[in-house]
Amino acid sequence: MQKTPKGLRLHIGIFGKRNAGKSSILNRLTGQDTSIVSDFAGTTTDPVEKPMELLPLGPVLFIDTAGIDDDSALGDKRIERSMAVIKRTDLAVIVAEPGTWSVFEDDLVHQLRRLDIPVLAVINKTDIASPTEQDIEYIKSKCDGLCLASAVDNSGFTELRRLIVETVPEEYLTTPPIVSDLVRPGGAAVLVVPIDKEAPKGRLILPQVQSIRDLLDGDSVAIVTKERELFRTLEMLKQKPDIVVTDSQAFLKVAADTPDDIPMTSFSILFARLKADLAEMVRGAMTIENLRPGDKIMIAESCTHHPITDDIGTVKIPRWLRQYVGGSLEIDHWRGHDWPQNIAEYKLIIHCGACMWNRREMLSRLISAREYNVPMTNYGLTIAFTLGIFERALGPFPEAMDVYRQMKKSGTDD
Amino acid sequence: MQKTPKGLRLHIGIFGKRNAGKSSILNRLTGQDTSIVSDFAGTTTDPVEKPMELLPLGPVLFIDTAGIDDDSALGDKRIERSMAVIKRTDLAVIVAEPGTWSVFEDDLVHQLRRLDIPVLAVINKTDIASPTEQDIEYIKSKCDGLCLASAVDNSGFTELRRLIVETVPEEYLTTPPIVSDLVRPGGAAVLVVPIDKEAPKGRLILPQVQSIRDLLDGDSVAIVTKERELFRTLEMLKQKPDIVVTDSQAFLKVAADTPDDIPMTSFSILFARLKADLAEMVRGAMTIENLRPGDKIMIAESCTHHPITDDIGTVKIPRWLRQYVGGSLEIDHWRGHDWPQNIAEYKLIIHCGACMWNRREMLSRLISAREYNVPMTNYGLTIAFTLGIFERALGPFPEAMDVYRQMKKSGTDD
Repeated sequence: MQKTPKGLRLHIGIFGKRNAGKSSILNRLTGQDTSIVSDFAGTTTDPVEKPMELLPLGPVLFIDTAGIDDDSALGDKRIERSMAVIKRTDLAVIVAEPGTWSVFEDDLVHQLRRLDIPVLAVINKTDIASPTEQDIEYIKSKCDGLCLASAVDNSGFTELRRLIVETVPEEYLTTPPIVSDLVRPGGAAVLVVPIDKEAPKGRLILPQVQSIRDLLDGDSVAIVTKERELFRTLEMLKQKPDIVVTDSQAFLKVAADTPDDIPMTSFSILFARLKADLAEMVRGAMTIENLRPGDKIMIAESCTHHPITDDIGTVKIPRWLRQYVGGSLEIDHWRGHDWPQNIAEYKLIIHCGACMWNRREMLSRLISAREYNVPMTNYGLTIAFTLGIFERALGPFPEAMDVYRQMKKSGTDD
Repeated sequence: MQKTPKGLRLHIGIFGKRNAGKSSILNRLTGQDTSIVSDFAGTTTDPVEKPMELLPLGPVLFIDTAGIDDDSALGDKRIERSMAVIKRTDLAVIVAEPGTWSVFEDDLVHQLRRLDIPVLAVINKTDIASPTEQDIEYIKSKCDGLCLASAVDNSGFTELRRLIVETVPEEYLTTPPIVSDLVRPGGAAVLVVPIDKEAPKGRLILPQVQSIRDLLDGDSVAIVTKERELFRTLEMLKQKPDIVVTDSQAFLKVAADTPDDIPMTSFSILFARLKADLAEMVRGAMTIENLRPGDKIMIAESCTHHPITDDIGTVKIPRWLRQYVGGSLEIDHWRGHDWPQNIAEYKLIIHCGACMWNRREMLSRLISAREYNVPMTNYGLTIAFTLGIFERALGPFPEAMDVYRQMKKSGTDD
């Protein structure tokens, strides 16, 4: 978390009148996930900046606007103080009690939208009062999203989290490079691309192309080879490559042919990091340990027609899971944007790499899964886990290794 | 030509009654381009196979159906003999004199189309008679194309050539691999991919992706690097790569950083070979030598919106040509499928690599250019020629080098 420079974090401004409950909303939103790292308390009129981890989005900076919430202050003075915060806000959350939305909030919305800043409204304290239908319609028409919440009942926070993911500006959904941060400038990565009968004729699939491009952008070299030529390819090089990345289909052969001192992972694991949240998906994969014959599993694939991963999702992963669990499993397949209403019945969700999707959509799915306490992981992590090369494949990612070691230490229930 | 196995050549069956003029059509169609290599004369009832070079398509095998053209033979016997030829025909040309189309030709068309073989009709001897409008309509409705020709006047053969290119089955338009035939199995090619501000974000352009895939299909290794890292990339390798392929934009730097004993060329030159005809385009590029200030040039680009090559076609190539010619040139730009009516006024056509097009379309353009004796070349060859690295860039292609040496020996007119 310390690695993300403050300037690159999403700045979420929390606005609202003094007693609207801004701090309790903030605590509920983040408190269950992480503690406050530090408070940069300023002068009494300065807003308080709170760097926090907002799952599943990652590190954000909340700006708690204590000091500008005094609606008895003179209009100009108040607008001036608000503007100072608004100018460094990427996404605004306005907190209000039921029935108290006024010209103060309207002014805020007006100033924010003039600068194209997305605005979410939270009607708090719904445990003690309810907003009128008319109020709801009015606020919805003004803002990019509205949710009803109660910090006391701890209700509405999944919805708020979902609204944040839906409205956050695109650039804050972008994660670190695909792979180039794991390779020195001038260094080389070996990318292993199996060509089977299902590979699209004359092409490479998108994650492979994007990884090559990312390496070039990082002033590194991409050495592309089939799994059969990997050994000879490594022999060609005077020095070891910084990393070997393979399609999960060739995981075992590549693990065998790559010397232990060369970091090794899969495109699918790189994409768990890029398109979703690697730590969360590592946790998900490790629950495979607890699966029992007869458990219900969901396998989800973004593409409705994709011959490459079809076979992995429908044949190979089910087979490896059955072998690992030592019995049959009840497996449902979901494709495209369809998503079942009742996910609580699943013991685990295994998702494809979602290479054609943006991170926003995958984060929404992670939120849904968390809401029902269903662990979620992806194809590559599942394959690595069931084939017994999980630790090796996570080697290049220290944060994921931390999660792995913690979970291993705390043990599983068998 | 000897390199193409007989079984892979396009088999063009020439059908028609005894006096329709099949042989004279065949001679006119191919005679100006090359001589007959060999005749495999069979028994009198066997058709004669004539392996020939049909420009711009390449090596084909004509089957001259002398022996089955006797319409006095009994119906069953005739059909049986025809079927033996039809079964190994990929494209059929039926030659007839004006006003003689009969049940004989209708039978042939019926048999051919039953087997999904494209059928072209040639009405020959139009110097001595004309077909009726009714005949023309009837034959057009039966066949995939019709042209009126005269072997005596040498008319109609550009049209016939164009019809052949238009109707030839796709698989016979496919040329050798993009690059993998120039790399040993297990060997490596270095692909130089400059990343400038105009490169599409997060992607590679199609010729680069296709080249990587082609190398993998050939059991070779693709080492992808930027031009700035090329020197260091070559240093990484224990052995020299079999070839270095660069984007034409980085031609000079790559030529300088690649040791003389490593073959070097450009994606654009590979695509002249793949999508058009390298020998023909080498001839075209060499006419740059004869350009004079004030000459009219056409620069043609397949894509209507393509930021990458836009700058090359509109800025860089015009500048290099002016510098080479030592004066200004009149340059017209044509984009997409538009093609001027009057191309005879151009001294040279310079085409983009046409990576998004199929070979059929580029061959049609080569036919148009040949029809008006306008030389045609492409971006990469033009850049190599004007920058003085033409000979080196053609090094990997013996046939193109032959054309280069012949033209150099025969001299230019300055």
